[in-house]
Amino acid sequence: MHSEDIKLLMKQSSKDGLISFAAGMPNNDLFPVKEIDEILSNLSDDIKKLCFQYGPTSGYPPLVKSLQKMMERKGLKLSTDKVLVTTGSLQAISIITQEFVNEGDVILAECPCFVGALSVFETYRAKIIGIPIDDQGIDIQALKEAIANLTQKPKFLYITPNFHNPAGIIYTEERRRALLEVLSGTDIILIEDDAYGDLYFDDKTAPLTRPIKAYKGYDVDIIYTGSFSKILGPGFRLGYMLSSQEIFEKAETIKQALDACTSNFMQILANEFIERGYLEPYLLFLRKEYSERYELLHSSLKKHLPKGVSWNVPKGGFYAWLKLPESINATSLFKDCLSQGVVFVTGRTFDPESRKDNHLRLSFSNMPKDSIEKGVFLLANVIKEHLKIKSLII
Amino acid sequence: MHSEDIKLLMKQSSKDGLISFAAGMPNNDLFPVKEIDEILSNLSDDIKKLCFQYGPTSGYPPLVKSLQKMMERKGLKLSTDKVLVTTGSLQAISIITQEFVNEGDVILAECPCFVGALSVFETYRAKIIGIPIDDQGIDIQALKEAIANLTQKPKFLYITPNFHNPAGIIYTEERRRALLEVLSGTDIILIEDDAYGDLYFDDKTAPLTRPIKAYKGYDVDIIYTGSFSKILGPGFRLGYMLSSQEIFEKAETIKQALDACTSNFMQILANEFIERGYLEPYLLFLRKEYSERYELLHSSLKKHLPKGVSWNVPKGGFYAWLKLPESINATSLFKDCLSQGVVFVTGRTFDPESRKDNHLRLSFSNMPKDSIEKGVFLLANVIKEHLKIKSLII
Repeated sequence: MHSEDIKLLMKQSSKDGLISFAAGMPNNDLFPVKEIDEILSNLSDDIKKLCFQYGPTSGYPPLVKSLQKMMERKGLKLSTDKVLVTTGSLQAISIITQEFVNEGDVILAECPCFVGALSVFETYRAKIIGIPIDDQGIDIQALKEAIANLTQKPKFLYITPNFHNPAGIIYTEERRRALLEVLSGTDIILIEDDAYGDLYFDDKTAPLTRPIKAYKGYDVDIIYTGSFSKILGPGFRLGYMLSSQEIFEKAETIKQALDACTSNFMQILANEFIERGYLEPYLLFLRKEYSERYELLHSSLKKHLPKGVSWNVPKGGFYAWLKLPESINATSLFKDCLSQGVVFVTGRTFDPESRKDNHLRLSFSNMPKDSIEKGVFLLANVIKEHLKIKSLII
Repeated sequence: MHSEDIKLLMKQSSKDGLISFAAGMPNNDLFPVKEIDEILSNLSDDIKKLCFQYGPTSGYPPLVKSLQKMMERKGLKLSTDKVLVTTGSLQAISIITQEFVNEGDVILAECPCFVGALSVFETYRAKIIGIPIDDQGIDIQALKEAIANLTQKPKFLYITPNFHNPAGIIYTEERRRALLEVLSGTDIILIEDDAYGDLYFDDKTAPLTRPIKAYKGYDVDIIYTGSFSKILGPGFRLGYMLSSQEIFEKAETIKQALDACTSNFMQILANEFIERGYLEPYLLFLRKEYSERYELLHSSLKKHLPKGVSWNVPKGGFYAWLKLPESINATSLFKDCLSQGVVFVTGRTFDPESRKDNHLRLSFSNMPKDSIEKGVFLLANVIKEHLKIKSLII
């Protein structure tokens, strides 16, 4: 089971000297510590006191306004839609699931899919149907067939179109429109998780990240979720969702019973970070850092990996997704890599049905630059060993 | 419905000049702003970076240790029990409800009961049975009868034995033991919500706040919940639960799917607050502030209230609970008070069945000292008017 792989990993990856491509989190050295220090030392007394107090369930009003402006710049029109601030976008996914899903209901998800979302869907005992993705986005034909073959109407389709976790891909414009065509009029809600959209490597990619929710002329109800975890720090536990008024109202009631409201302290810091103009320069810095890390990873992969192993070339985000020859099993590879001092996350972890296991996810976001080549070298050697054994058996 | 009363109140209580006995929250001027500033300016760089990062679902390990020590000082033995850090004790209640309650299951609660907990129980579509409380604690005879009359075994009993919200009472030693006697061997879990236990007015009261979970020799599974909302600030969204290993493990899985973990930033600040010895002096300050506020309220109530209105004399916490003559309806009183510029929360808000309405809750925690007498004066006048009208009708 994929959760066992994660447990094994968690136990081992804290070992000294281990090179970890496993953790899908920012590197501690990249956080905007200086900027937050500056904000903290310049807060007025009244705002400081507000940090300690309860706030509205929907969110700290100035942060809600800042988020509205951010989303409008991404092309989202907010005339009737409403923002709910959450403790990370995972809470948004959890609230949406609680709002729509009862035990046995069907959820459509990408295969592979963000494992945090899969855990939420499993907690609410949904039946998860995985739809394959390729390097352009979700497989439209497979999606159509899945919908046609189901006897139950799926409650929603959950996707991560920008710099997918784990597959690293970005949906093409054509695939976004084709997806909207398929969903139009079906009453299947689309959940668009955009945790990584700001983290493109190249400005030319920026227009491709435009939210699907911003596309007009389709009859699809879209809930858009965003997060501060990748652009400020997961320790803030801040995310948000944008939805119709009707979905918002029920979500707000659920949030009220989950934790009353999100920390005012964290919301105020995040809002000051945006309002004082720290976000854009910080994003520029992150884009440069992550693209440099990926460049290093890419050249190392090219240099060391044997033939038969391929990978996507991500245009942003945290992840490279390696495809192994069918004969190699990522879980058995993982065990040997661990003993050699390098780890990753196995492909089946992200498979809603825990089957496909000839992929592995390499996260470069958390990796010190000078460890990348060594990690790839160790990984490549173990892959070569596995290929050799396989060829001997055959 | 009680939720309508709350909405009406929320809309109105932000009006200028309104004297509000409604809000069950600390006053902005009491927060430990200076201490937190000091902590922030003295954090090491490594700890600062940790603030921005993900942490374990169960909680930031140094905070978990600090909490263990705090609870041990209260007499709790933690040999096999485990701590889970949550975003406020409301999240703990929500997690516990998700762990044990399916639609239609029975929950026992006090009548009156903390309205936040009632909202959670309603969200999970539980059947809530209210057991009356008096000035000593829960009505033991009523509890026995309720259990005997039920065809379904209740999943748990939820109580707030220390400085009850809204009733302000503290359970006596005898009542605590009698409660444990009744629950022993029934397999009904006891949830002990101790959000206010540290806020006694007089040191003599301290021993009476000993957690029920610390009592030995009874066969009752007790989950103990605590909160930083009343002793540091609700804006931190920090609480915790202490339970058996088995209950903890399921709760941790639920928490994982709700929001992955609680903010490291807030946990680190709270832990530093405890470790650097700021908590105890701050509690001394709060106890003095709240007891002074209650003294002012008490003398004003004695001076202005007409005969026939009685109230508990709280030994700690945030609340006084006024009992009106049966002929007066708190909701209609509320409307007239609102037009006179003073508000409170009506009794039926806290009744699981939204029936009993001859009580009102006066919260003194959030009230500037110099507004207390004026607020009571206005309230007393409206009560007198209502009594006059009633006597004319009769």
